[in-house]
Amino acid sequence: MFKVALIGQGNVSFHLESTFTGVKEVECTIYNSRDENLGKLVNSSDVCIVAVSDSAIKGVSKKLLPTNALIAHTSGSVSMKELPDDGRRGVFYPLQTLSSAKSIDFSKVPICIEAESLEDREILLKLANYISSSVHQVSSEQRKSLHLAAVFANNFTNHMYQTAHDICEENKLSFDLIRPLIHETSNKIMSLTPFEAQTGPAKRNDQATIKSQQNQIEDSERRELYSKLSKSIQKVYGQKL
Amino acid sequence: MFKVALIGQGNVSFHLESTFTGVKEVECTIYNSRDENLGKLVNSSDVCIVAVSDSAIKGVSKKLLPTNALIAHTSGSVSMKELPDDGRRGVFYPLQTLSSAKSIDFSKVPICIEAESLEDREILLKLANYISSSVHQVSSEQRKSLHLAAVFANNFTNHMYQTAHDICEENKLSFDLIRPLIHETSNKIMSLTPFEAQTGPAKRNDQATIKSQQNQIEDSERRELYSKLSKSIQKVYGQKL
Repeated sequence: MFKVALIGQGNVSFHLESTFTGVKEVECTIYNSRDENLGKLVNSSDVCIVAVSDSAIKGVSKKLLPTNALIAHTSGSVSMKELPDDGRRGVFYPLQTLSSAKSIDFSKVPICIEAESLEDREILLKLANYISSSVHQVSSEQRKSLHLAAVFANNFTNHMYQTAHDICEENKLSFDLIRPLIHETSNKIMSLTPFEAQTGPAKRNDQATIKSQQNQIEDSERRELYSKLSKSIQKVYGQKL
Repeated sequence: MFKVALIGQGNVSFHLESTFTGVKEVECTIYNSRDENLGKLVNSSDVCIVAVSDSAIKGVSKKLLPTNALIAHTSGSVSMKELPDDGRRGVFYPLQTLSSAKSIDFSKVPICIEAESLEDREILLKLANYISSSVHQVSSEQRKSLHLAAVFANNFTNHMYQTAHDICEENKLSFDLIRPLIHETSNKIMSLTPFEAQTGPAKRNDQATIKSQQNQIEDSERRELYSKLSKSIQKVYGQKL
């Protein structure tokens, strides 16, 4: 039986707790990172998962010392080395967008694992394998890159949706007209590479449409974004603007 | 019984043909737009759907004259007025990304309809309703805006996937690590607005992460894209960089 302390009361803790609850080999409790007795409370745990904001990881994890437990944070961008070096340390990073409003099937969520010792790596691998079929050993450096890739695939992609939404709204059109396209665009990527899936005026170097759409955009910032993104696509397909 | 001539041998024709084939009220044939006898061949049709590239619409539709058939093109960005003004004209625009490699459930594809006369609008509405439950009357001006929104929601979104893919590849990471995130990001938009769904450093004005990620990006063009997109998100959420 693994005794897991989940520290922090955000979305990651919440989702991990509800997922670990279904695993008989794991006993899992959520703790408030601000609890004055935090160190004492989690002292008998095998693994402390510090699921707090990036800037709080250092401070919260220090409060756990001294401890024999393995301390792992859940951040995409924070190095493992930011955890106290007089303890056992690791990373347990679920690569997914988690919101409190929406439950998630964790079995398909990639979990990226890092640890200093072989033994601790085995522990985190085991823990991750209980809840996901997609578990990966990833260095701090690689994880930072993954996090950057995730910003493009998630935050920036959502901003493309936002822009499409605004264009619809400005023209008295329902965003529902665009939703099936968004669904299909992401669906294609499940079996194709982005290189294979690309379509549109920039890819086929259709200057007439590109110019016409640029002229159509009234907002200068949006027009610049259109232009930069079109150029960037053309670069992928080896065409000059 | 509607006699529909599909003119052009691209993806739109291909998908419309295989969808109309399942509709007993429609008899549908594909024609090569370069056929010398095109006008004669399609003369007995009720509706000619001109599904060719934007720049070919004008030329191909002229070849159909004289005719009593309703001529409709399938383009998002071409005005209905570009069809010959001495004939009946309309637009039948399916708002979806169609590729030959992938079959599609047309019943959820929004079809945007435009026509000059009430009667012709009724014909196109009827035809669209046979194959889709999402049929909309949209003016040429609105359709142009929809097409622009679609470029953001599809082409530019796919370019975000491409960038994430490249970052993975450069760091010896599988793009499969990112695919579940892409799936979930689009899935959220089916029930939330993009405004509600946004997460990440730019939205929460996390300057430390934004700066660190900017420094992490070696390619200057990619760094500029990161910066512009972050600023654009911050503008949506009312924060200054």
